[in-house]
Amino acid sequence: MRSLPDGLPERVTVVEVGPRDGLQNEARPVATDDKVELIARLAQAGVRSFEATAFVSPKAVPQMADAAEVVARARARTDAELTALVPNPKGAERTAEAGIDGMVVFVSASESHNAKNVNRSVADSLAGFEGVAAVARDAGIPVHGAIATAFGCPFEGEVPAAQVVRIAEAMWGLGIRRITLGDTTGMATPPLVEQRCQALRAALPDLEIALHFHNTRGIGLVNAMTGLRQGVTRYESSIGGLGGCPFAPEATGNIATEDLVYLLDELGVASGVDLQALIDTAPLAQRAVGHGLAAQVSKAGPRLKRFAMDSVRTAAQ
Amino acid sequence: MRSLPDGLPERVTVVEVGPRDGLQNEARPVATDDKVELIARLAQAGVRSFEATAFVSPKAVPQMADAAEVVARARARTDAELTALVPNPKGAERTAEAGIDGMVVFVSASESHNAKNVNRSVADSLAGFEGVAAVARDAGIPVHGAIATAFGCPFEGEVPAAQVVRIAEAMWGLGIRRITLGDTTGMATPPLVEQRCQALRAALPDLEIALHFHNTRGIGLVNAMTGLRQGVTRYESSIGGLGGCPFAPEATGNIATEDLVYLLDELGVASGVDLQALIDTAPLAQRAVGHGLAAQVSKAGPRLKRFAMDSVRTAAQ
Repeated sequence: MRSLPDGLPERVTVVEVGPRDGLQNEARPVATDDKVELIARLAQAGVRSFEATAFVSPKAVPQMADAAEVVARARARTDAELTALVPNPKGAERTAEAGIDGMVVFVSASESHNAKNVNRSVADSLAGFEGVAAVARDAGIPVHGAIATAFGCPFEGEVPAAQVVRIAEAMWGLGIRRITLGDTTGMATPPLVEQRCQALRAALPDLEIALHFHNTRGIGLVNAMTGLRQGVTRYESSIGGLGGCPFAPEATGNIATEDLVYLLDELGVASGVDLQALIDTAPLAQRAVGHGLAAQVSKAGPRLKRFAMDSVRTAAQ
Repeated sequence: MRSLPDGLPERVTVVEVGPRDGLQNEARPVATDDKVELIARLAQAGVRSFEATAFVSPKAVPQMADAAEVVARARARTDAELTALVPNPKGAERTAEAGIDGMVVFVSASESHNAKNVNRSVADSLAGFEGVAAVARDAGIPVHGAIATAFGCPFEGEVPAAQVVRIAEAMWGLGIRRITLGDTTGMATPPLVEQRCQALRAALPDLEIALHFHNTRGIGLVNAMTGLRQGVTRYESSIGGLGGCPFAPEATGNIATEDLVYLLDELGVASGVDLQALIDTAPLAQRAVGHGLAAQVSKAGPRLKRFAMDSVRTAAQ
């Protein structure tokens, strides 16, 4: 791939995770219609990959109870890549029937977070992936990996890079060729991003790395910028900044798709996504959840938006 | 100055501008007691420089009507550097009497913003600085410069780097040795930051550059990171993210001091400011203005804050 003069990749893929990660912790159920419409409109805006839903227990995660319907109806509206989180072979069978483009198996890098999240050890989670991989193989569907708490754990604190590499190696052994590092509670920092990308590159040079940052501590896009400098070409974000943090109710969640695309545009890194179309779609995301969202560009408008001289009472000094 | 391995400066100065830029556009007047208490507590937290107030017309900017009192009372509480915006020789005389450490003269890089802000041309503003400089010289007080809309203008769009350099050269000619580039309405981007820092360095190699970013479009800290890579060692921010944008009522204002210091801490760049003390001070900023603020770290806590396993209903996947 040709690189820009300052070492950034020429092109990256923006993966919309709002329909899954963004909505998962909403107190109010979000209408299936809104989920499908969001995906369809974002696909029209140029987004080519979605984490559309999760085939998890509807009892544990009621927000994802409509997983099969979301996939079927989104599929009818777009040919973009649709993936879903898959916790076990049963979920994999439901996923395969739904006609998904990729199954995402997930595990936390820290034992306590994995226990809290799926009530099993990291080793048991890794062992369980084999059943999912078998179903996926039969269905001819690729399996991708996601490592939660990859930059730190809210229960344990620091997470060793070696533990992330160990999990990635186990996933690689199952045929997984794309792994997302999830910054689940916003603990990633530029040095941690550099360190983890370099450690994974050293251990698994052919692995495709995706980065999933939360803006919980305000530096989500600084981390994305760090990933760009490391040559990573796949970033997960949510429209409007959908999502939050169960550990910090007032804090924000995923980095916002429009803010990420704004940064990419200004850096000259192509994403194929139209910023104005994202700005036009953000109000739908806000209506769907019924509360304000954290994205900035959809509030302020594009950089070169011109204001009339009489549009403000006073200019800012 | 010794540099860290990745080219970042070893130490930077964090300048708190909340008491001036942050409060200037608040609809409700903020109590003088709160302004003084904020400065005193931030000084205790390790902040060594403040843009404390502006000696502007109380009629035009009622929020700054207590300028002299703020300076006098803050001076009694801290020996940190206290500067103030000074629009004209009359303001300079008031400033000199108040016992300030530095006068800041300001002009917009774009004609229309300067006209809107101070109702005169850029050339007339520059000419007016001579009177301020004369008063400051007599009082033995240094004069610093601030260039608003240095990265773009909400009325005109792009602002040429050459115009920023031309203004800086005029300021240099008046004896000004420190100039802030103000990202007044959040139009700065990493390429613009690089370009402007390099152009100023080429024209005025001994000038001290300070950077003042707003987070209006979500990339304020990405711009700060870019400034660090350019070797800039002075950054302006506001506690809690005080401030907003008259052009985008829902958008945020200055980058938040606690989010900036969090980033600096994680990069290993010393600021001398204690993050926990900032987090402890943010609620005072919020109470002073009576509404929520945009800073993230004061909501989420420090990176390695540990949560009990039973502190959340469900972990985030």
